[in-house]
Parts: sequence; C-alpha cells; structure tokens
Amino acid sequence: MATKLSDNEVAKQLERAPDWSEISGEIQRTFQFDDFKQSMAFVNRVADYAERAQHHPDMMIRYDKVTLTVSTHDAGGITAQDFELADYCDSIAEAG
Amino acid sequence: MATKLSDNEVAKQLERAPDWSEISGEIQRTFQFDDFKQSMAFVNRVADYAERAQHHPDMMIRYDKVTLTVSTHDAGGITAQDFELADYCDSIAEAG
Repeated sequence: MATKLSDNEVAKQLERAPDWSEISGEIQRTFQFDDFKQSMAFVNRVADYAERAQHHPDMMIRYDKVTLTVSTHDAGGITAQDFELADYCDSIAEAG
Repeated sequence: MATKLSDNEVAKQLERAPDWSEISGEIQRTFQFDDFKQSMAFVNRVADYAERAQHHPDMMIRYDKVTLTVSTHDAGGITAQDFELADYCDSIAEAG
C-alpha cells in the first residue's frame, strides 16, 4: 500500500515537478491548452492512465484549461503514486 | 445572440429541471454514476454536445460524480441555451 510522504519529501518532489503546487494535502496543476478539444483529449489520456493505475485524480475542465488535483485517500495524503501520476500528465501535456 | 433570463424565468425553468440549482449566476447539477468509467462516458457525450452547440459547461469529475456548471458568458448570466444543455445532460444521464 502507498505510504504518505513527509512534508520534506513532498517539498523535494515539488522542486522536481515545479508546475505542481501543494494545496490542502493534495497536489494540483492547471494545464493550459489551445481549445476545448485539446482539453478533452488530455482528460481522456489521463483517464486511461487512471484506470490502468486505479488511481483517479479530480479533473476540472474549463474550456481550454484542465485542473488536476491528486492525493491518495487510502494513505490520507500525498504519496509517490501521486507524483507518478503528475509526471505522466506533465509528459503527455508536453507531447501535445 | 442569447439573452439573459430574468430571475423569474430562471426560477420557472428550475421548477421544470429540479435537479439543477442556481449558484452565483450559473446553474449546477452533480450527477452520480456507478464508477469512473461511467463518469467519463457521460463527460464525453456532454463534450460532443458542447462542441456541436459551441456551448461549453465547466465539468468537474470526481471518480463517480460529475458536476456541471453552466452559464452564458456573452450574455452575462443564465440563458435558454443553458437549460437546453441541462435538459440534454439530464436525458443522457437517465438513459445511462
């Protein structure tokens, strides 16, 4: 089972993933796209990953912006698994 | 162009579409599904409609729950078009 990261560990991970922020015990990033279609394409790729990993971020779609909020409920906080999801989302957003 | 509905008109529409609430000049409903897959299927159908109508709700996905928030930015409030979108979403959620 995933183990909750310490504040120090979270801070280190956020240095490595600087587009993400810690907010109320979760990590969050807003991705900017060109239009709604691109937002939806991104959300569907994240959803495929989420189902494979059985780890589901909250996803807010506002036309050309998608905000992901991630934590691990079972662990009561932020885990390495959350940063794996963050890294994956960063990589597909950059690949376009 | 879409015309903003009066408070009275919004109230009448909400009587007809009772699962929706007015919140800060927008209408909102949270749909409950069985799982994440069903949430994503719903969101994709709403997205197809949104692109056809060129009218895009904000969509929040939390595993088996999807919250839609709808208003018409150009009209500065809630319009008949918003309730058309609401009706469509109600109908596909019921159809499953």
